[in-house]
Amino acid sequence: MGPGPSDVDPAVLRALSAPTIGHLDPAFLTIMDEVRAMLRACFGTQNELTMPMSGTGSAGMETLLVNLLEPGDRALIAQHGVFGGRMAEVARRCGAEVELVTEPFGQPLRPEVIAAAAEGKRFDLIALVHAETSTGVLTDLTPYRSIANRCGALLAIDCVTSLGGVPVELDKHGVDAAYSGTQKCLSCPPGLSPVSLSPRAVAKMTSRDTQVQSWYLDLGLIAQYWGAERAYHHTAPVNMIYALHEALRLALDETLTARFARHEKHAAALRAGLQAMGLALPVAEAHRLDPLTLVSIPAGVNDRAIRSELITRHGLEIGGGLGEFKGKAWRIGLMGSACTARNVLLCLSALRDVLKRAGHAVGDPIPAASAALD
Amino acid sequence: MGPGPSDVDPAVLRALSAPTIGHLDPAFLTIMDEVRAMLRACFGTQNELTMPMSGTGSAGMETLLVNLLEPGDRALIAQHGVFGGRMAEVARRCGAEVELVTEPFGQPLRPEVIAAAAEGKRFDLIALVHAETSTGVLTDLTPYRSIANRCGALLAIDCVTSLGGVPVELDKHGVDAAYSGTQKCLSCPPGLSPVSLSPRAVAKMTSRDTQVQSWYLDLGLIAQYWGAERAYHHTAPVNMIYALHEALRLALDETLTARFARHEKHAAALRAGLQAMGLALPVAEAHRLDPLTLVSIPAGVNDRAIRSELITRHGLEIGGGLGEFKGKAWRIGLMGSACTARNVLLCLSALRDVLKRAGHAVGDPIPAASAALD
Repeated sequence: MGPGPSDVDPAVLRALSAPTIGHLDPAFLTIMDEVRAMLRACFGTQNELTMPMSGTGSAGMETLLVNLLEPGDRALIAQHGVFGGRMAEVARRCGAEVELVTEPFGQPLRPEVIAAAAEGKRFDLIALVHAETSTGVLTDLTPYRSIANRCGALLAIDCVTSLGGVPVELDKHGVDAAYSGTQKCLSCPPGLSPVSLSPRAVAKMTSRDTQVQSWYLDLGLIAQYWGAERAYHHTAPVNMIYALHEALRLALDETLTARFARHEKHAAALRAGLQAMGLALPVAEAHRLDPLTLVSIPAGVNDRAIRSELITRHGLEIGGGLGEFKGKAWRIGLMGSACTARNVLLCLSALRDVLKRAGHAVGDPIPAASAALD
Repeated sequence: MGPGPSDVDPAVLRALSAPTIGHLDPAFLTIMDEVRAMLRACFGTQNELTMPMSGTGSAGMETLLVNLLEPGDRALIAQHGVFGGRMAEVARRCGAEVELVTEPFGQPLRPEVIAAAAEGKRFDLIALVHAETSTGVLTDLTPYRSIANRCGALLAIDCVTSLGGVPVELDKHGVDAAYSGTQKCLSCPPGLSPVSLSPRAVAKMTSRDTQVQSWYLDLGLIAQYWGAERAYHHTAPVNMIYALHEALRLALDETLTARFARHEKHAAALRAGLQAMGLALPVAEAHRLDPLTLVSIPAGVNDRAIRSELITRHGLEIGGGLGEFKGKAWRIGLMGSACTARNVLLCLSALRDVLKRAGHAVGDPIPAASAALD
């Protein structure tokens, strides 16, 4: 119950362990096509160029930036957590000029601040994080297309911890490029990064003056393998794609609507229990991300000792804070298959147990959590 | 029985499907350390910086080149197949000046030609392919350390199709940097790329004037996760590393010596059978790579039709030719767990069957293959 990898459904583990076949086997090509179609449904897009990259979420981030930015291009990047900062770092390594808009960790992005930073300037790309895995803040994407239009920019988002857990609607919000990971709300093991690019993003890619600096992540080449040409680029991670196929099938079988409601309900129960224990939630209610809850570590509590005791005594992992929240907050995940009532109760009762055993008085979380589960 | 992915042992598939745990879980950190130790044994090295990258073999290639080359650096790269050419392409994308030494596809590298190209010049890196997956040619590494010394270069190799199938001795041959894949002679699914860097290569990395252009493949950052610091970089592909752990355990349990002898014996039987059928082997005997055999497609035989029929009628995949051998040769793999007598017999009898059914007279391969298996 950390910030990912989340628990994987046994059906997905079973699919993962099917015999490995060739990456050009006709049976595998069918699986690839089905994965692409199911990913489009999850991303809320018709984008032809939608597929999993052969690396973890950070490889997806780098894929978008190396393909969409050229040396000297101008990128406006919003940072209110670790992953916005990572995007800026990667964009600079692409030779882009980065203008960084920062908000404090745990605070939402303010569209008016980003609009002001963009005002009267030209940018090639605006990039922001839809669901900040480092803080549990969800950003409403509604205002950003028009801001991007005013400065001529493509709009790119990180949806690593939102895809499959809260609505992601690329086409509705005019998002040009998005990347995610498999190990969060899709409950597939880590190792793949789904990406999706709009026709406008593809046009930028195909009109570049310079080569993409990464050969491994060069979408122009990779699309020839995932597309009709089936031209060999690298050996696809066959078994991981079996697993993603099954994870996507389970998500769509549940229906995305039901899945989002499940995340909302269990996150509400977890938060109610944490607050009943007297623990504070640093993120304001309107901006909380259901799959990942940030909770303050009370004064005097030893972060590492409590997390270590949770693992050894209860077999339960929760995440430490990142960046400004290091040592100051925990991150508790309720993602995909692991987003269940029993996990809410387990986490609350185990956390209460180790806090009490360490001499910290906390209230009983179960009645409030149980009420929220009604 | 193509050029990889090879068949995966059921024990490895079982390990792959173990429940996913956190990438910072103490139990997982132990697995990581054991993987590193076992990889060192397979690579024949004491190199501290030995670990699997979170991508397929081509990600390993890019890892070495982006970390060891800076813009303006000079690289001498030998090409006698697709993968030498790919190294040159990636090195150029790093901003390096590439001097390319080419030999025909299917021919061995000639050390005197490479020595002549290096003579009287300075290079930062010499890179060559130990086992050319596109042609089935094995290169003796013995001469290259002294050539690299004379021009002040690091020595880097591709051992994607040799690691675990034929001897790879990085320290004995003075190799500074090597990358491989998991899906060939280690018989683990595709998705990881083991790499190893010598202290001399690490010194070059740490004295760079410029940042590594790839954040995802920046070894300076990744080594802080695989090393004592355990600093989060990206979410490791946990299940794939379980699988690699089991695949390495099986390889070392068999002993590398026995494993190499097994590859040698079965490759000899396959070749004897192919020749008994009247098929020609384009690679000269002294340079053949046991795990992958190149065989000429006889005149008048339809490449795609025969390979398609092999899959549909016999469930058997063999590889097509690459580059200059496209449509002119097949590549037959005998790698790791799939390197067995029954696969030799299956491949020979199935290939004979589909050739005869298509109207091509071929000799009986089994007596010669069987004799070679004695």
